Amino acid sequence: MARVPKAISKLIESFEKLPGIGPKTAQRLTFYLLHVPQNQLESFAQSLSTLKTNTVLCTVCKNVGEEDPCYICSDPTRDQKTIMVVEQALDVLALERTGKYKGLYHVLHGAINPLENIGPEEIFISELVGRAKGYENGDGGELEIILATNPTMEGNATAMYLASQLKTEDMSGAPARAVRLKISRLGLGLPTGADLEYADDTTLTQAIEGRRSF
Amino acid sequence: MARVPKAISKLIESFEKLPGIGPKTAQRLTFYLLHVPQNQLESFAQSLSTLKTNTVLCTVCKNVGEEDPCYICSDPTRDQKTIMVVEQALDVLALERTGKYKGLYHVLHGAINPLENIGPEEIFISELVGRAKGYENGDGGELEIILATNPTMEGNATAMYLASQLKTEDMSGAPARAVRLKISRLGLGLPTGADLEYADDTTLTQAIEGRRSF
Repeated sequence: MARVPKAISKLIESFEKLPGIGPKTAQRLTFYLLHVPQNQLESFAQSLSTLKTNTVLCTVCKNVGEEDPCYICSDPTRDQKTIMVVEQALDVLALERTGKYKGLYHVLHGAINPLENIGPEEIFISELVGRAKGYENGDGGELEIILATNPTMEGNATAMYLASQLKTEDMSGAPARAVRLKISRLGLGLPTGADLEYADDTTLTQAIEGRRSF
Repeated sequence: MARVPKAISKLIESFEKLPGIGPKTAQRLTFYLLHVPQNQLESFAQSLSTLKTNTVLCTVCKNVGEEDPCYICSDPTRDQKTIMVVEQALDVLALERTGKYKGLYHVLHGAINPLENIGPEEIFISELVGRAKGYENGDGGELEIILATNPTMEGNATAMYLASQLKTEDMSGAPARAVRLKISRLGLGLPTGADLEYADDTTLTQAIEGRRSF
């Protein structure tokens, strides 16, 4: 067996820990970096070590940002009566790219996944419920919560759990000025550019159930 | 467009520079690292910045190692009369894994590629020629140089160029005790587990030309 220098094998190990990067890719990336100027390596290294120290979780929406509260939560032009609940901070980026959504967000940082020991306490669910409850003391009106967790088993389970939790909370207090709570789920169906022929049964079923008048 | 914290966008940029990693993967890796403990990030960062400072190029074979000369060049049990010429240090790892090769190596760190402005001077070709020449003052016998560059257009061109250079050098001096120079190329043909039906024409041609008696 070939002896690999420790400096190299350590970096290979670090790359291997990343999702979707196997031993071969980790080797390839490491040996590629051997041909890269030292200052580029240093800047890469610095970005890694300052990644978490230079970012904060917004105390309101739990999104990752530079300030607290984040720029979305502190923007008064945003629709304060709509909260889109997503699993990851990356999902916020994807939704913001559409430019179509003008409400607020709530990042759960995961989904309920019993197989990986992630229960409702491990993700920011109680914070969302607390946020929704906070609106009850506000000036009334309707609060819409859009459940935008992934349409996977875990995401769907999380959405169902959230809906049940939010409805319970809605009942418990029941003050005179309570806001009406509207809970919705992102539309499911065929993605743009898809081929009906290759769509799976569940997606087709969802597309039929979610059909819209033309 | 969503505002991404600078600490995050800088790391995404660093990942994007790696081969085979596009913008989406770079984003995914960066946001994954947000959930990783800080000490793991620090160790990753340290591996990056010490990658090149803690490794040296062997002055003999140009392989990447911890000592100079490297552990292969300084191993007296290795066959000193066989040099395998490869493009990258990674190729040495692959060949060493087979456990079948007991000779020395020479790492070119690239292949001749006019489209990317890589000429014979950019890679360690003259060093190989010098090494082969060095044997001429030795104790005679036969020196085998196995050209193990990739069977791509660039690798083949490099192998052809090397062969012509080595033969010229062999002629020039022509002392009485000169070693005989044997130049070979790695066997080409069907890889193990391949399907004849899907093999391309060139590979099949090579497999027919390179057939062995059974």
